[in-house]
Amino acid sequence: MDISDDLAADLISTAHALADAAGAVILPAFRPVGGIAADNKLADGFDPVTAADKAAEQAMRAVLAQRRAGDAILGEEFGRSSGDSGLTWVLDPIDGTRAFMSGTATWGVLIAVSDDTGPRLGIIDQPYTGERFIGGLGQASWRGPRGSGPLATRQTSDLAEAILFSTFPEVGTAQERAGFEAVRDRVKLTRYGMDCYAYALLAAGQIDLVIEAGLQAYDIQGPLAVIEAAGGIVTDWQGGPAHEGGRVVAAANATLHAQAIDLLRAY
Amino acid sequence: MDISDDLAADLISTAHALADAAGAVILPAFRPVGGIAADNKLADGFDPVTAADKAAEQAMRAVLAQRRAGDAILGEEFGRSSGDSGLTWVLDPIDGTRAFMSGTATWGVLIAVSDDTGPRLGIIDQPYTGERFIGGLGQASWRGPRGSGPLATRQTSDLAEAILFSTFPEVGTAQERAGFEAVRDRVKLTRYGMDCYAYALLAAGQIDLVIEAGLQAYDIQGPLAVIEAAGGIVTDWQGGPAHEGGRVVAAANATLHAQAIDLLRAY
Repeated sequence: MDISDDLAADLISTAHALADAAGAVILPAFRPVGGIAADNKLADGFDPVTAADKAAEQAMRAVLAQRRAGDAILGEEFGRSSGDSGLTWVLDPIDGTRAFMSGTATWGVLIAVSDDTGPRLGIIDQPYTGERFIGGLGQASWRGPRGSGPLATRQTSDLAEAILFSTFPEVGTAQERAGFEAVRDRVKLTRYGMDCYAYALLAAGQIDLVIEAGLQAYDIQGPLAVIEAAGGIVTDWQGGPAHEGGRVVAAANATLHAQAIDLLRAY
Repeated sequence: MDISDDLAADLISTAHALADAAGAVILPAFRPVGGIAADNKLADGFDPVTAADKAAEQAMRAVLAQRRAGDAILGEEFGRSSGDSGLTWVLDPIDGTRAFMSGTATWGVLIAVSDDTGPRLGIIDQPYTGERFIGGLGQASWRGPRGSGPLATRQTSDLAEAILFSTFPEVGTAQERAGFEAVRDRVKLTRYGMDCYAYALLAAGQIDLVIEAGLQAYDIQGPLAVIEAAGGIVTDWQGGPAHEGGRVVAAANATLHAQAIDLLRAY
């Protein structure tokens, strides 16, 4: 849809307000003495949900009820709420609950606002370190404990020089893991365990590739908007749209993206 | 050796001064636009060393020359310098160079001061987030962007409830990896990619185990002092001293340590 300057300003301001609200709720629950107790959300897997996760989504929904009552919402914790504006807020209050419960500041609050073409604006927020990455609707910037600046992806043009991040070996089927490994075996350096923070590093020009599988829409829409605004490309492993989740490859530029897709599309 | 209160105060103050000096040198080199170029230090492996790494060790050596000229030094970058005090400063200016070059704030400045029994005082410092963990000579505390407090490890008593961190699958021989996996298959959650920051999380009561292999003395002496001061145990995989490096297991308490060693000692 066509987004006017006035609407864009309101969406940007609302996105910041959502991140602020989520962070205020989540931070007191991060790194308690003796660690975190968590529910076991999936009977067959390990996907802990903390009370903070739910409370943060409720806080964000309250902000939207006040500021953007006509917009739809898709939240990780409380599902879909309908709207009539043509816009949907896609919310993951704590992306990286495993990180959260082990005290690493690599979880994030993921926020996107999307129309029927996909996400138009996204935020990756890390409240503990005070880092916020925003992209879309004319925004492409970060702020952190040591300053702020524009976001711009790298120009690495050879897979052999690339730095790859992934949640593998924790996620994925055997076939998906084989696809990930086909790329991993060609890059300079592969690192693990950074959760959604890896997308922020890609947008900030520090790494070159992120490869994931098994994502939900709310896992990728915020990062997708941030990375594309910074000059990167995010698709599924076949080169198609990624905003519904599933298998995702995020690349710093088109040249690198094509080299990764050449390896991934067979899987 | 016997360390008087006056000497302890001087060593603690010197350790903080070393961390401050290293951080001041390193921070301007962290997260440059477009990432970091690094030398390839080992012909057969990937162990990049940045100019910041060397400059930071030089800065720390300058502090020691001024404040503690009689102490020996063992540094990652410039090796051994002799002394006659019976004390040795063990320095790793940037532990986690792969993390450093990919923009993740999980690298650290590792500092220890040791006598012939091993490390007596250690610091794990993360200059970007402003986090410092110190333990030994009566110290066991952290400070960070959101406050400060005492360090105390967790009381988790069952391996099945433990959170394990490791640099595997990046490090280790095939046999060492099998040992790591024997423990990994028994714990609740395993996470990767945190470098020396995992030791800080263990000391801060957020996780339960760290298992590594192929360590150098300067990789472990700072973390060892911090973890033991917080109530944890750090040994090799046979239960012997760990301060010379090699295969290391760090545990939150004696009960958990015994369960891990029972599995690791066969490897």
